[in-house]
Formats: sequence, C-alpha cells, structure tokens
Amino acid sequence: MKTILLTNDDGIFAPGLKALFETVKHLGKIIIVAPNKPQSGMGHAITINKPLRIEKIHYAEGVDAYTSSGTPVDCVKLAVDVILHNKPDICLSGINHGANHSVNLLYSGTMSAAIEAAIEKIPSIGFSLLDESTDADFNHAKHYVELITKKVLNSKSIKNICLNVNIPKNSLKPIKGIKICSQAEAKYEENYVKRIDPRKRDYYWLSGSFVNMDTRKNTDVNALNENYVSIVPIKVDLTNYELQKKLNNKWKF
Amino acid sequence: MKTILLTNDDGIFAPGLKALFETVKHLGKIIIVAPNKPQSGMGHAITINKPLRIEKIHYAEGVDAYTSSGTPVDCVKLAVDVILHNKPDICLSGINHGANHSVNLLYSGTMSAAIEAAIEKIPSIGFSLLDESTDADFNHAKHYVELITKKVLNSKSIKNICLNVNIPKNSLKPIKGIKICSQAEAKYEENYVKRIDPRKRDYYWLSGSFVNMDTRKNTDVNALNENYVSIVPIKVDLTNYELQKKLNNKWKF
Repeated sequence: MKTILLTNDDGIFAPGLKALFETVKHLGKIIIVAPNKPQSGMGHAITINKPLRIEKIHYAEGVDAYTSSGTPVDCVKLAVDVILHNKPDICLSGINHGANHSVNLLYSGTMSAAIEAAIEKIPSIGFSLLDESTDADFNHAKHYVELITKKVLNSKSIKNICLNVNIPKNSLKPIKGIKICSQAEAKYEENYVKRIDPRKRDYYWLSGSFVNMDTRKNTDVNALNENYVSIVPIKVDLTNYELQKKLNNKWKF
Repeated sequence: MKTILLTNDDGIFAPGLKALFETVKHLGKIIIVAPNKPQSGMGHAITINKPLRIEKIHYAEGVDAYTSSGTPVDCVKLAVDVILHNKPDICLSGINHGANHSVNLLYSGTMSAAIEAAIEKIPSIGFSLLDESTDADFNHAKHYVELITKKVLNSKSIKNICLNVNIPKNSLKPIKGIKICSQAEAKYEENYVKRIDPRKRDYYWLSGSFVNMDTRKNTDVNALNENYVSIVPIKVDLTNYELQKKLNNKWKF
C-alpha cells in the first residue's frame, strides 16, 4: 500500500487540504502533517532559532494527522524524520487557496513543501486553485487532482517528479484540459500601502499587481488564462547553465 | 554614479554586512536596507499577513541606511518600491555568516534577497563565508567580494546576472582562486533533537548532517573543498525542461 503524505501552507483546517484528503484517501495510507496556523508566503523558510512542536490530532477515521508549529518545509522534514521515520511514496501539498503559477512558486509555502520533498527524492505535487477565498469551491478540482496524482504514482520509471499544478477557479466556462507548461517569467509591481498608526508611526502593507513578462505561448499563465489546468515540472537545481557558459567565456580571474 | 543596494539575512548589525559595506563603499552610492533582527533560514518568505515597519538609522557617514521588520526579500521589495522608488544598479547580499552552497541556497535569506533582485532584473550577488561564528574573520573575503562585484558592474552587456558566491573560511591554507561552478546536488539527513520541557511536553530542534550526492567535478561543494571561491550563476526559472519533454512524450491526458 502506498504511503501518501499530505501537507499545505494554509494550515491543518483549511478546506483545500480537506478537499485534497477527500480526493486521494482511497489511493493509499494517508499521513497528514500540516502547519497549525496559516503559513502563506513562507517560501522555503525553515525554523532554526526556536524549537518545534508536533501535536497529534483527530482529522478523520483511520488517518494519522499531526500539526506542527513550523513552516510547510518544516512539516515535510518532521514527517520524514520524526513521524514516518521513512519516505512516503508521494508528497501532495495543497490544495492552496490561491494561485502559485509563474514566479509565485518562489514565495509559496505550498510549493516549497513539494520542493523539499523533491530534495528528499520523494515524488511530489503542489496543487493550487486560482481562488483565494476561504469558502472556495474545490469540487471541480478533484478530478484533476486525482488524475495527476495517479499519473505520478504510476510513473515509477520517471525519476525526480516534482510538479507545480494550478487549477482554474470554478466558473461557468468549462475547463479545457491539462497542459504541461513552462514557468512564466513574471513579477509583481509592488505598491506598498502606507498608513499611520495611532502613535503616528508609519507602517506598510505589501501590495502589488502581477505582471506577466513572458511572450512564450507554452507558459502556465497562458494555459490558465485559456482555462486549462497547468502543470510545470520543477527542478531543485537553480544553476543557470547558459549564464555559466557565458561567464566562463568572458570572465578571467 | 552607481547605486549599490546592500542587504543581508543576519540583520543590520551583523559584522558580515559591515565587511561588505567597507569593501564596496568606494564603488558607488550605498543604500542599506536590512532586517532589524536575524532572519537566517527564512528562504524566499515575504510578509503578507502583517504590516511592515521601516526605520532610518545612522550606519556610517554619507550612507542611507534603513532597518525593516521584514524578511530579506521584503527588504529588497521595500528598497525598490518605498525607499529608492527606483532600481539600484546592483544588489549585494551578505556577507552571510555561514555557507550557502548547494541546496542551502533554497533555505537562505541571503540568497533569496539576491534572487528577489534578479526577479526585478537587478544584477545581484549573494556572498557567504564558510564560517558561522559571529566574530568570523572577513578580511580575506574582501578581495574576492570587490573583484566579483566589479566584474558584475562592468558586465552591462550580460543580462540577468545573479550569483551565489561562497568563500572558504580563513585558515592557514591559501585560497587557490575563483571557480565558476554548478550547484551541487545535496541534502541534509535530518536528525531532530527531541527534548522534554518542564511541562512534560516534547519539543524538537532541527539538526542534521550535510550529504553531498553529486559526483560531478565542477560543483560549488567540490570547489570549496579544494579551497576555491565558488560562483554559481542562478536562475529564477525552476522549470525542469528535461522532465517536461519526458512527460510530454509519456503522459496523455
């Protein structure tokens, strides 16, 4: 029987995690290790300057579920080293309340958990829904979550699978299918909101608008705009080999 | 005159930042925006659920210096949007107290600040010294920091430069030079230290040993082992194009 580790960044009680659990619970033995509070935007943060807590909780019949005081990446580390003492067959993270396409994956706790699993050579998928609301409708997502999870579980011969999956928001427009894409080159134009507190000190709220700078057709942003589910295969090696070649040619030390 | 943004993850008063400042202050107009407390291991975290503070401080004559309550990535965003209202010519992060080679760059606030600058198309370098102590000797590092910073400032024709630079610890062994490398495939074998608090509840300290799994010669880990300064050119696109091709061939939806 397959061991399936579930985690997320919205916290153990997020509806997105519940939807993920409901979708994959028949595919293997489920272990949940998720943060005890929302951890959105935590990226690949780990907890090194304070200790971590783990608490076993009741989540559903026959499921081992734990919350941790740490980040999503901490949860994956704790699951492997402290709880399972072993590697699960797959790590699924999400379903995130909100998009994690393009550059968002760098800020995303959901995807960082999946990437941490990839470092451990555990096949992993981060799922995100393009709907940030706490009462987002995940029903239409379940078909795709199950389909893609089964594909990965049945692809033992393909090494180092780590996927960033984004699913369009539920709407009257039907989802057209699934596309395997490239991470769009994009960024946020920051526009901090400045306010003044009752003690007359300034404070700033992060705010900004998304800018897609990528002109290629096959990006996750484009696929999602056309109402496809996007899959971007992710790697842990951030070496820019093209630039490496250039620097080796041009720079002499 | 060039505008040079300095930041780090060890906090505004870290000796490593001071060493960086002393090394590059003659190369342009220096702006410092650094966290008001240590932010090691924060990865690419951003602050979205609480507001941020910025405080102008005296750092050195003629320097605009600010601390922020945010993460290293927040510092870069605040520098560009709130403080400079413009992009600096280069962003230098560090010098970190401790190694950020191989997989460490994913956990590193130092490197995430450099990567955030790269998202903004600002040339950037993260510098790290293989010495974690607060009174680490940075003197031998200064020559390399200046050399590499000048190389980047004088390479306007090369786009999207983002470098992960690691410098061996000061020792009796002379540094052999600089190598342009690839990110070593490595991981930590976690080994959480479990303790019991006075209320009889368990808590866990993250701990582990570094494992280099890479057999290639030209990795940052190898270069550092041989007492070279390592430079790994970094990219923001995490798409695994090789796996993308494989999945496009094998998976039909």
